[in-house]
Amino acid sequence: MSTQSKTNGVVAERLAQVRALMSREHIDAYLVPSADPHLSEYLPGYWQGRQWLSGFQGSVGTLIVTQSFAGLWADSRYWEQASKELAGTGIELVKMLPGKPGALDWLAEKAAPKSVVAVDGAVLAVASARTLAAKLYERGASLRTDFDLLSEVWQDRPSLPSKAIYEHLAPYATVSRSDKLVKLSQTLSERGADWHFIATLDDIAWLFNLRGADVSYNPVFVSFALIGPKSVSLFVDSAKLDASLRQTLESEGISLVEYTKIASALRDVPADARLLVDPARVTCGLLDHLKAEVTLVEGLNPTTLFKSQKSDADAQHIRQAMEQDGAALCEFFAWLDSALGREPVSEVAIDHHLGQARARRPGYVSQSFATIAGFNGNGAMPHYRATEEEHAQIEGDGLLLIDSGGQYLGGTTDITRMVPIGNPSAEQKRDCTRVLKGVIALSRAHFPRGIASPLLDAIARAPIWAEGVDYGHGTGHGVGYFLNVHEGPQVIAYSAPPLPQTAMQPGMITSIEPGTYRPGQWGVRIENLVLNREAGKTEFGEFLKFETLTLCPIDTRCLEVSLLTQEERDWLNAYHAEVNQRLSPLVQDQALEWLRIRTAAI
Amino acid sequence: MSTQSKTNGVVAERLAQVRALMSREHIDAYLVPSADPHLSEYLPGYWQGRQWLSGFQGSVGTLIVTQSFAGLWADSRYWEQASKELAGTGIELVKMLPGKPGALDWLAEKAAPKSVVAVDGAVLAVASARTLAAKLYERGASLRTDFDLLSEVWQDRPSLPSKAIYEHLAPYATVSRSDKLVKLSQTLSERGADWHFIATLDDIAWLFNLRGADVSYNPVFVSFALIGPKSVSLFVDSAKLDASLRQTLESEGISLVEYTKIASALRDVPADARLLVDPARVTCGLLDHLKAEVTLVEGLNPTTLFKSQKSDADAQHIRQAMEQDGAALCEFFAWLDSALGREPVSEVAIDHHLGQARARRPGYVSQSFATIAGFNGNGAMPHYRATEEEHAQIEGDGLLLIDSGGQYLGGTTDITRMVPIGNPSAEQKRDCTRVLKGVIALSRAHFPRGIASPLLDAIARAPIWAEGVDYGHGTGHGVGYFLNVHEGPQVIAYSAPPLPQTAMQPGMITSIEPGTYRPGQWGVRIENLVLNREAGKTEFGEFLKFETLTLCPIDTRCLEVSLLTQEERDWLNAYHAEVNQRLSPLVQDQALEWLRIRTAAI
Repeated sequence: MSTQSKTNGVVAERLAQVRALMSREHIDAYLVPSADPHLSEYLPGYWQGRQWLSGFQGSVGTLIVTQSFAGLWADSRYWEQASKELAGTGIELVKMLPGKPGALDWLAEKAAPKSVVAVDGAVLAVASARTLAAKLYERGASLRTDFDLLSEVWQDRPSLPSKAIYEHLAPYATVSRSDKLVKLSQTLSERGADWHFIATLDDIAWLFNLRGADVSYNPVFVSFALIGPKSVSLFVDSAKLDASLRQTLESEGISLVEYTKIASALRDVPADARLLVDPARVTCGLLDHLKAEVTLVEGLNPTTLFKSQKSDADAQHIRQAMEQDGAALCEFFAWLDSALGREPVSEVAIDHHLGQARARRPGYVSQSFATIAGFNGNGAMPHYRATEEEHAQIEGDGLLLIDSGGQYLGGTTDITRMVPIGNPSAEQKRDCTRVLKGVIALSRAHFPRGIASPLLDAIARAPIWAEGVDYGHGTGHGVGYFLNVHEGPQVIAYSAPPLPQTAMQPGMITSIEPGTYRPGQWGVRIENLVLNREAGKTEFGEFLKFETLTLCPIDTRCLEVSLLTQEERDWLNAYHAEVNQRLSPLVQDQALEWLRIRTAAI
Repeated sequence: MSTQSKTNGVVAERLAQVRALMSREHIDAYLVPSADPHLSEYLPGYWQGRQWLSGFQGSVGTLIVTQSFAGLWADSRYWEQASKELAGTGIELVKMLPGKPGALDWLAEKAAPKSVVAVDGAVLAVASARTLAAKLYERGASLRTDFDLLSEVWQDRPSLPSKAIYEHLAPYATVSRSDKLVKLSQTLSERGADWHFIATLDDIAWLFNLRGADVSYNPVFVSFALIGPKSVSLFVDSAKLDASLRQTLESEGISLVEYTKIASALRDVPADARLLVDPARVTCGLLDHLKAEVTLVEGLNPTTLFKSQKSDADAQHIRQAMEQDGAALCEFFAWLDSALGREPVSEVAIDHHLGQARARRPGYVSQSFATIAGFNGNGAMPHYRATEEEHAQIEGDGLLLIDSGGQYLGGTTDITRMVPIGNPSAEQKRDCTRVLKGVIALSRAHFPRGIASPLLDAIARAPIWAEGVDYGHGTGHGVGYFLNVHEGPQVIAYSAPPLPQTAMQPGMITSIEPGTYRPGQWGVRIENLVLNREAGKTEFGEFLKFETLTLCPIDTRCLEVSLLTQEERDWLNAYHAEVNQRLSPLVQDQALEWLRIRTAAI
């Protein structure tokens, strides 16, 4: 019996237990999303119940179980993995496509009158719960969110993570905790609120100038924050704080409360409180602890906007981190160029060498996400990850896509570059050149301060659309300051609603990363991070422009230079001149020589 | 006593009568929008109650009357006119600004608990009524829409317009009425509706291949249409149809009913009907006649989408109309060039000569809107209109902006061109050049079929934003086929919500008209109409591109050619070569010579 078959037998058994419990509780359909009480991108094992129950190990997917059906909704990047892992479990893979109804729509559509759909409210956003409940109500069905069904059947559930919490200190932390708390308090007043509940881990880490390592890549720690008119409470496992940090925080008036006490603290919020919460960023299970009389003031967490607007001092640290990151990349790319043809190089070796090059750099903490090193066909999968078991050797001709990033005390990086292998084809070069045109078009753009960021997407896509090409992901996401590599509120994606909160403001850092993906053949993506800078006030208003923060050559061997306009060449030459000038003091020998050659003007 | 003072005394008297009626009816605030039961852009005199009551003759404005206050909300283009016309009436001018609360918000904010706000429901869109009623409800106030207060006090109310209705015939009408009605019926089924009520005049004119002249510029006629499972009824004043047309329509199964019978017809819609209506395009006063049991299926009128997608045969007629329009413009511009310096030329004379040049062209019916001919500072007002009483002479140096259009049996035109007067300044030339860059950038764009049109706006604005310039209006509006010069559902404006119904589809005609306005100095706008054409299907989806329909030289004397990129020059030269080739067979002598010179390559 293979390992997979064993697993599948186990999954079938777990499903049977869940179905028995559903019968006992009169639950007709049971929903298990990939989510935790913090609605995080990366989940601690404790909240990976969907993985445990379904056997599907991918990080995003939604499971629905009824007595006669079990289905796992997954998007295209997981179809291959999911169909392998679900084989023999009795769980059907439901392929999600953009614009098609998802798992929640399915539930709402299939729900029979008087049927009960259950989901652990502790991990379902208030906004999602409202939408689902409304749809079920229309069908005469109902939603139950007060019951964590898994807790009864999941015997070997992992414990909560327990990594130490540490301070993000000056000079890297450029605004003090107390200044941040004062600003938050002022904003609560302006919004007519006197209480505020935060469940999102990056908001909390930013507000308290603390960092942790409870999940991969994001330097955050499992916690809640509850701010009252005269109190600031941080809910964390006390074992994560050493005595000195505990004393520091308490001396600043911050109450440290055990993580598990959040429910009772919410129950104790006074009936006349006006509590600011973001219904998209807190779960209904938590809010259900509030007294019914508490008034909810709904809106974006103020910290989400605060932390998106990096200070000038932050920006200065980020520029230095970008220099270190760029220097590490030069060393890595110089090694790669020399190794190719001399020794076998695999996608996994790339991850390893790149990690080593970054780790040598001052201020480096960790990767900011799992490296994507995809050769030819693997590069066509935007979220590909090479593993020890399955990966390609870099050999022959084609394109290697490398998307990677680091967490530094002074900033978070995220960069994608294309590497020519052997002789890339003319079509591959045209793809790279067109994508670069998109990068340049948006990088050069000026735009009104306050414009909804999704509206800028067409500027990057215009040169790509011009040749009948498009890509299925957004052009840019916000990036934190030694925090999550994906943060809001801004997003450059034409599929995103241009809500007021997506407005472009000075200090925001966003990626510009257009691409082209030819399934089974190759993929192209070029990505820089850019900083919103003021571009002057005219009689027509205030304008912003982008400063390109990322410093690393864009390999001209992948380009068909004749397709670039003079303005595009000028941009590329100026960029390379700056990369050379700022990185050359930080690299030596082979890396310096590589940098010199790769930044030569075209 | 001046005429103005007389008017103002009359207005005060009318307001007193209205206030007396408000007391009798226990109405605390009375709202008079600029609207009719068809929610048209141009209102017949019968529905110009706001003008009659306030004395303000501008076409858009909202009046609110309470016992202690009267205010007229108007946007910036009307401020000068409104402050003159309202002087001494006791009505306050409330200056509307984008993003600021409007008249309805003011009402909702000021409404005291238990107070009653009244508006004639016959002219208030269902969507607006719902929003206002909800806001008033929150304040404990209520909305009354069942009473046309003006009808009691407006003694000399104009009668309804009575211009003859005529057929839009083949070859210009390229799809028969019966085919359109079959398609509409199929769409109703697809949407789960069996009845449909249309109040918008251009939808009705398009559906029945009929045209009229009840209002200026839009070749429509006052009417309603009610489609049932087995009936098609057109509600019009029977005097507008001659016997032959009446017989034609009746022979095709169309019931002709008096316009005034719409209320009873709506009352007769059966209780089990599923009626498709667009809540933004019908008024609440009309829908209130329906039985409460009738199910409303809400959505865009199918005809709005149908008529936006011109057929290939339509497009062929439009190209010919554009050639005639371009030839008329050549004759006009050649005259203007020769007249300037030789004789006094005023803004009003321009309107006159342009009208004459168009009127000589085959297929010409009327202007498609009031010509905007604005010299220097007047050009800075996007909706300026020169009058016999107030207009500028064209003399000295500067820029003349001319925005005009014609209705032809085979299409509707709308074009803006800049004319150099004497020696335009370097800054004026830079403004024109930058605006042209915006026109070219969007004209050259390809984009995915089905993209929400507001998302394309940034492509036109990017070259303008690049220099810290912006403009307060949208970049493009839909244009009808021998119908309204402003039609939906598409709109290229970043302030417009990118709703699914704004999706770009083949056959749509849209304006591209970026601008720059320097109040008191000069204004620049360059406008072409473009047709959505298929640009091919690739592995990434279906793409569209624009065909520029408008044919008329863009005066290079207004440009600083050195600021154009090579790609932009190539576009302009190719455009001018086509303009020359297509228009030269249609003009002679002075106009031909002007065309030849003005289309010379740069």
